[in-house]
Amino acid sequence: MMRVPGPTPPEVVDTPYNDGQSTLFFGPWYRKSPFFEATLRAGAKAYDIYNHMYLPGLYTDPFEEYWHLINHVTLWDVSVERQVEISGKDGTKFAELLTPRDLSTCKVGQGKYVVITDENGGIINDPVLIRLEKNRFWLSLANSDTLLWAKGVAVNAGMDVDIVEPDVSPLQVQGPKSKDVLRDLVGPEILDLGYYYFMDAKIGGIPVVITRTGWTAEVGYEVYLLDGSRGSELWDRIMAAGKKYDMRPIAPSEIRRI
Amino acid sequence: MMRVPGPTPPEVVDTPYNDGQSTLFFGPWYRKSPFFEATLRAGAKAYDIYNHMYLPGLYTDPFEEYWHLINHVTLWDVSVERQVEISGKDGTKFAELLTPRDLSTCKVGQGKYVVITDENGGIINDPVLIRLEKNRFWLSLANSDTLLWAKGVAVNAGMDVDIVEPDVSPLQVQGPKSKDVLRDLVGPEILDLGYYYFMDAKIGGIPVVITRTGWTAEVGYEVYLLDGSRGSELWDRIMAAGKKYDMRPIAPSEIRRI
Repeated sequence: MMRVPGPTPPEVVDTPYNDGQSTLFFGPWYRKSPFFEATLRAGAKAYDIYNHMYLPGLYTDPFEEYWHLINHVTLWDVSVERQVEISGKDGTKFAELLTPRDLSTCKVGQGKYVVITDENGGIINDPVLIRLEKNRFWLSLANSDTLLWAKGVAVNAGMDVDIVEPDVSPLQVQGPKSKDVLRDLVGPEILDLGYYYFMDAKIGGIPVVITRTGWTAEVGYEVYLLDGSRGSELWDRIMAAGKKYDMRPIAPSEIRRI
Repeated sequence: MMRVPGPTPPEVVDTPYNDGQSTLFFGPWYRKSPFFEATLRAGAKAYDIYNHMYLPGLYTDPFEEYWHLINHVTLWDVSVERQVEISGKDGTKFAELLTPRDLSTCKVGQGKYVVITDENGGIINDPVLIRLEKNRFWLSLANSDTLLWAKGVAVNAGMDVDIVEPDVSPLQVQGPKSKDVLRDLVGPEILDLGYYYFMDAKIGGIPVVITRTGWTAEVGYEVYLLDGSRGSELWDRIMAAGKKYDMRPIAPSEIRRI
């Protein structure tokens, strides 16, 4: 994204140039991901806006990035999947109020792709929901302020429920060699993780949650960073583990998503 | 904003080039304003994203645009101020639930700058509210999905209230000569319009609401288009009336806003 400097640009990041012509400016009016500096270092040349945050939109060339995903393994900054945490004694009851999906079939440790619907059945968001505990859930959002919807519904619901945005930021590791990378990072138990299940893990001492989900039809994982201050560190550790599998960062690949 | 083409770009608009190097692509994943084609024709070279819509970010140069605002008169596409309409028998009661601002002092025909607060007093949005009828209000939003919050709060509120996004798209006419332009367009009664009041009007047969509000410390108006299919027509009529006052389109001027 080309950023337009105001008369006194509030913040100028030393970034790659856009075709040698336009300097990129990143204003403070959108949130930066914990991996933002790492994506700049990695050569992200264009960003999109999603959930009020910067989403890498291009590193090199969409075709090249696509083929790398299909043939090798790729790393994506998807912190824009902002999380809504639902907890409290009535957490399950409240989660069931938000979606028509039957959550009684969702075990603790499992996730479901759900739709969040409004009072008329219109779709507000289509997050991945994961069930962390019997009464604790995360929604990993698409592009709308679903935290506001959930908090609004809770105001007069008369339920014992807490709704917050936790400090949780996902990366995606996607592509046929993603199993190798994750195995090297967290051990062979990752190979037993079922589709749409998750596990707790540590990567170089950094606590994460790893789900077997993603925006592609390839094998892939999402690594949820649980400490926003350690974004660059996690990114570097995953890239280091991926080096021998020719891992590289790419922007979300829309063609493989659909 | 530079748009990155996917492998099969869904829609390519014939736009000005970005420094002669990068073609602008506008994907369908953000909403275009009814004035979008007019802003392209007028030479908008960069767009920002605001409330899931394209907001013109630059036509020529921020300094030049600023001085034009201060000395002459300017036209801004601010359709990104998406509207929330609150109506129904309990419209007033519900509006009073959303904001700590005392609405009993807001007459029909008047507006107020309000904050919309969450259950803990946190700020969700800071719209201009206008009172169209005793129990009918519009909120002219800043950048968050406050429609979702309002609809969420309404779910269990037990009030007779309807909350929708109406087909309403504002333009701003800002600068010292804005009174001249509006007088020529709708007649001398506009000169009696008080600060933060509004009136119904027609411009070339197109129904609009005109408020004496805006994002500047200059004299200025907002013209709310009530029929999204007539955006280019309204834009052209306002530009034609502004010609003799040297009106030109600019991007929102942040420096004059604060």
